[in-house]
Amino acid sequence: MAERMDGKLVSASVKQRVADETAKLKEKGITPGLAVIIVGDDPASRVYVNNKKKACAAVGFYSEEYTLPENTTMEQLLSVIEVLNSREDIDGILCQLPLPEHLDEQAVIDAIAVDKDVDAFSPANVGKIMIGNYDFLPCTPAGVMEMLKYYSIPVAGKHCVVIGRSNIVGKPAAMLMLHENATVTICHSKTQNLKDICKTADILVAAVGKAGFVTADMVKDGAVVIDVGINRIDGKLYGDVAFDEVEKKASFITPVPGGVGPMTIGMLMQNTLKAAKLHHNIEE
Amino acid sequence: MAERMDGKLVSASVKQRVADETAKLKEKGITPGLAVIIVGDDPASRVYVNNKKKACAAVGFYSEEYTLPENTTMEQLLSVIEVLNSREDIDGILCQLPLPEHLDEQAVIDAIAVDKDVDAFSPANVGKIMIGNYDFLPCTPAGVMEMLKYYSIPVAGKHCVVIGRSNIVGKPAAMLMLHENATVTICHSKTQNLKDICKTADILVAAVGKAGFVTADMVKDGAVVIDVGINRIDGKLYGDVAFDEVEKKASFITPVPGGVGPMTIGMLMQNTLKAAKLHHNIEE
Repeated sequence: MAERMDGKLVSASVKQRVADETAKLKEKGITPGLAVIIVGDDPASRVYVNNKKKACAAVGFYSEEYTLPENTTMEQLLSVIEVLNSREDIDGILCQLPLPEHLDEQAVIDAIAVDKDVDAFSPANVGKIMIGNYDFLPCTPAGVMEMLKYYSIPVAGKHCVVIGRSNIVGKPAAMLMLHENATVTICHSKTQNLKDICKTADILVAAVGKAGFVTADMVKDGAVVIDVGINRIDGKLYGDVAFDEVEKKASFITPVPGGVGPMTIGMLMQNTLKAAKLHHNIEE
Repeated sequence: MAERMDGKLVSASVKQRVADETAKLKEKGITPGLAVIIVGDDPASRVYVNNKKKACAAVGFYSEEYTLPENTTMEQLLSVIEVLNSREDIDGILCQLPLPEHLDEQAVIDAIAVDKDVDAFSPANVGKIMIGNYDFLPCTPAGVMEMLKYYSIPVAGKHCVVIGRSNIVGKPAAMLMLHENATVTICHSKTQNLKDICKTADILVAAVGKAGFVTADMVKDGAVVIDVGINRIDGKLYGDVAFDEVEKKASFITPVPGGVGPMTIGMLMQNTLKAAKLHHNIEE
């Protein structure tokens, strides 16, 4: 029976670390500031934004929220970002995705100053992730790495199979695993023999977006199974992994909810702290 | 016995395509311009730069070469780049690597304007490669993809194993393969069971930097073997693949020299053409 990896616990430890460092920064008169922009009233986005605000308060950050109506124009949204880019008290800017369809997400991401792009979605920050010399970590994949570290799970030399190739999870997760010396395989909807490949994984990362996609017959005995999926069915959350059956084969497993999900906000706090340090030329 | 993939032939076809498009641009009064900077007198770099100049002449580009002495300072090098960044007749800027040790390669790369960075080495261009929405292709991996296309070798759904994780070849090659729907595994010096993994490859890309590293027992019958290695031993060039023995098992194989090497310059020409089109707002 697998040990459950507790994302709330690990995220709390990350936030504690950020809070401790923030307290020290405040002694120097510096308060990290995060601005969160939300457009429209998607209920899931609303929950995420509220959680981010709470986390900011908990670690001692200054935070602002901009709630813009569904019919906000690109011009209006970009003008909000422009002001935030120029403000010295704002270290990080985050625009909650997805945006309403009439808005150009990539153009919005590109508008955020690279040194305030704490989601690390802009090309320059994505490039740094691939090169391996980054200021900001991609939040969700970095959360996965932090959990592996917390549970002392070795990554170097292991075979990590990532199912899913999104820009937010799959690809950057592959890069972070690679930088930690894992051998990495990236699978996706066009992969042949998916089951056989997954069965070779020491660490299996599921980022598919289909509830219960990863079944026990796809998992090697003793594998570490990381479930990045968040699938809402009838108001309930399900991961990409058929938890009950996979739990019996894996050595470690992340539940949904309470696994990778809570980690993301912890890493966002860490990136915002890093942004504040960079803006004030404070060494790590 | 494998069919040999002829990089000179495929590169010639790429250059012909670029030359044809350049002729059309010239009718509109536009001549793509490439500036190549070389610092010091590394003989291999000298050969590469000469080949790039020749290729520019062949496709009809305007080109300039800046030969700076070994003891050039960062300040001097950056001031050359600054002028080139501002010139309207220069569409692409390339600084031949490696640079002498006292110069900061990343800072030099970062100094080149993103829209003139035809090597696609800057973080913003690397990020676009990972995101999959690029202006400039990474030259060597793009050369590999072009050869596969030329020889009608299917990539979608195939298992591509890349040995090597450099920023110039391994990682971007993995991304281009992924965008073409291959399942991709990235191996490196810390990989366990390298031989077993390589034997599962439909397409094996060797970018290791060790002569004869890939032996026949690492190759599946009928695999496509792409050799990106350029190893100089006693003045002679060797690839990363033990060609004579692997040739007997593979279905297609690239020789060294005459395989991937010549492709790189073709792709550089293509990127420079693309830069010129972008600078003059000409649609593809």
